[in-house]
Amino acid sequence: LSASAAETVAVDFQPIGRRGHVKKDMTILDAARQLGVGLSSVCGGNGTCGTCKVRVQAGNVSPVTTVELELLSDEQDELRLGCQTELRGDATIHIPPESLTAPQRTQVEGRHVPIAPDPAVVAFELRLSPPTLVDLRSDAARLRAALPFPAASVDHRALESASLQLREHNWTVCTAVRDREIIAILPERTPLLGVAVDLGTTKVAGYLIDLTSGTTLAVRGAMNPQIAFGEDVMARIAMAMGEGDGRTRLHQSILVGLNSLIADLCAQIAANSQVVTDVVVVGNTAMHHLFLGLPVGQLGTAPYVPAESAAIDVKARDIGLEVAPGAYVHLLPNIAGFVGADHVAALLASRLDDASDHALLLDIGTNTEISLASRGRIVSCSCASGPAFEGAHIKFGMRAAPGAIERVQIHNQVVMYQTIDNLPPVGICGSGILDTVAEMKRVGILDVYGKMHSIPGMQRMPRKNEFVIAPAEETGISSDIVLRREDVNEIQLAKGAIAAGWNVLLTEAGLREAEIDRVLVAGAFGTYLDLRNAIRIGMLPHLPLSSIQQMGNAAGMGATMALVSKQERARAAEISRRVEYVELTTHPSFPDLFMAAMLL
Amino acid sequence: LSASAAETVAVDFQPIGRRGHVKKDMTILDAARQLGVGLSSVCGGNGTCGTCKVRVQAGNVSPVTTVELELLSDEQDELRLGCQTELRGDATIHIPPESLTAPQRTQVEGRHVPIAPDPAVVAFELRLSPPTLVDLRSDAARLRAALPFPAASVDHRALESASLQLREHNWTVCTAVRDREIIAILPERTPLLGVAVDLGTTKVAGYLIDLTSGTTLAVRGAMNPQIAFGEDVMARIAMAMGEGDGRTRLHQSILVGLNSLIADLCAQIAANSQVVTDVVVVGNTAMHHLFLGLPVGQLGTAPYVPAESAAIDVKARDIGLEVAPGAYVHLLPNIAGFVGADHVAALLASRLDDASDHALLLDIGTNTEISLASRGRIVSCSCASGPAFEGAHIKFGMRAAPGAIERVQIHNQVVMYQTIDNLPPVGICGSGILDTVAEMKRVGILDVYGKMHSIPGMQRMPRKNEFVIAPAEETGISSDIVLRREDVNEIQLAKGAIAAGWNVLLTEAGLREAEIDRVLVAGAFGTYLDLRNAIRIGMLPHLPLSSIQQMGNAAGMGATMALVSKQERARAAEISRRVEYVELTTHPSFPDLFMAAMLL
Repeated sequence: LSASAAETVAVDFQPIGRRGHVKKDMTILDAARQLGVGLSSVCGGNGTCGTCKVRVQAGNVSPVTTVELELLSDEQDELRLGCQTELRGDATIHIPPESLTAPQRTQVEGRHVPIAPDPAVVAFELRLSPPTLVDLRSDAARLRAALPFPAASVDHRALESASLQLREHNWTVCTAVRDREIIAILPERTPLLGVAVDLGTTKVAGYLIDLTSGTTLAVRGAMNPQIAFGEDVMARIAMAMGEGDGRTRLHQSILVGLNSLIADLCAQIAANSQVVTDVVVVGNTAMHHLFLGLPVGQLGTAPYVPAESAAIDVKARDIGLEVAPGAYVHLLPNIAGFVGADHVAALLASRLDDASDHALLLDIGTNTEISLASRGRIVSCSCASGPAFEGAHIKFGMRAAPGAIERVQIHNQVVMYQTIDNLPPVGICGSGILDTVAEMKRVGILDVYGKMHSIPGMQRMPRKNEFVIAPAEETGISSDIVLRREDVNEIQLAKGAIAAGWNVLLTEAGLREAEIDRVLVAGAFGTYLDLRNAIRIGMLPHLPLSSIQQMGNAAGMGATMALVSKQERARAAEISRRVEYVELTTHPSFPDLFMAAMLL
Repeated sequence: LSASAAETVAVDFQPIGRRGHVKKDMTILDAARQLGVGLSSVCGGNGTCGTCKVRVQAGNVSPVTTVELELLSDEQDELRLGCQTELRGDATIHIPPESLTAPQRTQVEGRHVPIAPDPAVVAFELRLSPPTLVDLRSDAARLRAALPFPAASVDHRALESASLQLREHNWTVCTAVRDREIIAILPERTPLLGVAVDLGTTKVAGYLIDLTSGTTLAVRGAMNPQIAFGEDVMARIAMAMGEGDGRTRLHQSILVGLNSLIADLCAQIAANSQVVTDVVVVGNTAMHHLFLGLPVGQLGTAPYVPAESAAIDVKARDIGLEVAPGAYVHLLPNIAGFVGADHVAALLASRLDDASDHALLLDIGTNTEISLASRGRIVSCSCASGPAFEGAHIKFGMRAAPGAIERVQIHNQVVMYQTIDNLPPVGICGSGILDTVAEMKRVGILDVYGKMHSIPGMQRMPRKNEFVIAPAEETGISSDIVLRREDVNEIQLAKGAIAAGWNVLLTEAGLREAEIDRVLVAGAFGTYLDLRNAIRIGMLPHLPLSSIQQMGNAAGMGATMALVSKQERARAAEISRRVEYVELTTHPSFPDLFMAAMLL
């Protein structure tokens, strides 16, 4: 038995937190497979694709191989390939987000920026003397007198429970105070919780935070239930503007979704949603308006101005959020019709307002918001990059779901791909589409105009203008999975819009591409795309990989920062005032830059 | 024809506003009867009762008679008796409230205190430039920039209509602003309206006011629909504290009533309730709490403290009031569990806080609130005077409704009475009960203990301890209408509680009864009772009639003052802070004073 035990090692995969024992000398890739960890591997472990990159945080592993030296040459030193690295002893392995297969990535993760908690809602533990015939002060007056500042008001819904709570808990309670308003009366020593929400067009991310410590207690991603009414922002604006109660239904739909998200977050730590005493919501301008129940007609018509751009504080109950009855929801400011509070949050999390270098932030999605910080200025724009990277308008396109091709490489005239959950392929998701286009261009199948050419040795074009990624016999849908010329054109439009966006900003700032010091890429797609391929097709500036940082859900991070700190809220307001918005549709340089940027 | 016309005169009865033509030389009482004006007349026009007092405001009438000189001796000079005064030409006749029969009195009238309007909600007419590609400010930012003060916020429900209103009205609108918040966007030059409400246990009075000028545009009284759940405050507190959804039902009930009252007020001037941009509500502490949806358990249990005593500002929509979506409702402060915001409003209207003399204010109802101003102090108390004056617990007692005996006099051993609408009597209402007790005492049927005695010549006591007011053959109910010894005792308890109340306050202030300079009597019953009789039975201090002023609905007046003036709101808050509340139930002098005050 001890001999057998000696032949296993303990392995701990982070950040997903899976642990287990595997045979000594097993590769990290095999160990991941055995423990159900979704480590990417396009070539299947042959050491040709380089997608199973990991970091060995602790433990004893086999030495670096020549395969690794070759494939990781322009990457950072500490990376290893999972298929090449054997476990010699117990080890802790960190899997970077880009090496995880889609199902194990969450929309909620993001790079944490440490800040000192300075929450808008603060707990005061009070021990009161009960009323007597010689002390007839009202319950509210008694609470007020016990607080260390004068003239507090008591929210009338908090007051509704106050008289009962005070008597039930023998006049010893925890009060949640915001500014000088008592917003909740709770049993003594109740930890005050807050919820930060990144309300995306497609996905919603929620964070349950301890307001006092700033600690994240639970995170959860969900689909935006408004998807049932239209996939993109313009479809929802059209629905809200149409006849009937479209706007109300969209408002109700997202509320139902958020209330269920908040309930799920609280259930994770067995907390009652009535102790959630603060909420911060960020989203693009249309989501922001639909959440508040505001009309969006003016967002769908030139010149596309928001109803409100300033930060908004409103009682959560007034919107219909099921949290503490006296709690507020804070909405960060918007910048413009298509640069919303979510981008302000991303700017906050990226600290671009503090940049002393030339730094570019891209939050890639159906709309891509871009900001460039340079010499104390921040210029921003919004590009209609479209839903191609989410699989829409692409013949075999699909979301990142089981069976989606998520990584593609062409190696010695052989197409290699990897699907989510290693299932027979049923379609191709954004990162797979980007890989395919970049690889086709690299090996010469695509020219700069997106036109397809046969190349010697590649048997992948049985029909003109269709490139086979997976032949029918390998797929789960009994047909070839192909990329058509039209699909390539969609990608050209999308990446062209994005590239034209940052090029216009460079023009505005008087900078050249090579002068950019840093690029921060935020958003789910931006976080999991292959940076090398994104540069190759011209979506991102041509810079060394080490200058590009993938931020994860920067908007969600910014929302949590604003949740736990009044200073961060003030900073967000300052950011929204400082940003100079550039309207691309009327910018003189835009048409030429867009035409040029569409080339591969 | 011209001869016939020459024999009629035009008469105009004020303040009820009835006009018409009557024969020349007709008495004012007959003219009132012909035009359907309810002028009181206990003796039926014989010149013996003195209840048909009127003021001749303009016009030519017959000279004063000796009957008048006798009956009006201790009244003010300008009064005349309607039955003695003949119309010699066209005339305008003012009927003081106490001379009107009950149905033509409204719960809403009150002595008007002139104040300079200084409303919380102010209109700003704005002419904006529309957004263009070079001016992309949000709608709210554009509104903010046009206002003459910085950093206004826009209520999110006002914002909901703002984007549409601005475009529909070509960027020229009227904005309603409260503090620095835009609470409504309306078509240009919309007059801003407000509603003041006196929320009584039995009756509700509403006033529709032009906020800019302070003018009253419409008034309306209604029953409090909560009556269906219990007649007095304690019954409603018990219902709210009981099992089930009693509190919610009471809250909903008053809301339905108030929304219907507001709609009726607006309908009177064909206004939309969406232009009502401010609301002030006053009521006793229990009504205040039930209106807000607060629990009232602590009001039903010693030491009877309110949940909140400070003034409250809350969005009207948050309570469920159907006015402008961004409007607030302001609730004046409470003083104690049984001295509510309605008494603060009465103090405000009576200017007792400014009194340089010794002035007593009584707001008589089921609970009677009393304040005494003396040497810069205001001491207040609440007496459980009970519902006897509303006809409850009195065998033939009833509300002031058609057929109720409302005035009683005993003249030369003959009992004279007057009923509302001159119908055969069916019962006796508060003022009639008070009159009966006082007259029985005056002629010696009652002794100081309330015991009944037969007196020579009076054939009104066929049974011991029952005094017949109206014999069966005269009534509409085929039985004698009597006052029993038990009924007299109820009145002794009620008036004793009130008298003990002001006597305790005199003790607190170190004053004697004779040192009181003024008495102000407020409330519906207090306004229409016979002051002489109220003094006679010891309910009011023994002072010359000229020192006693009947104020009408002082609480309603105070509510309208707070509606049109921020300064008045501040003054109300200051009043509530200054008032020294005296708890009668534990006051050492109360038992003795109460026992003494129960004597007739």
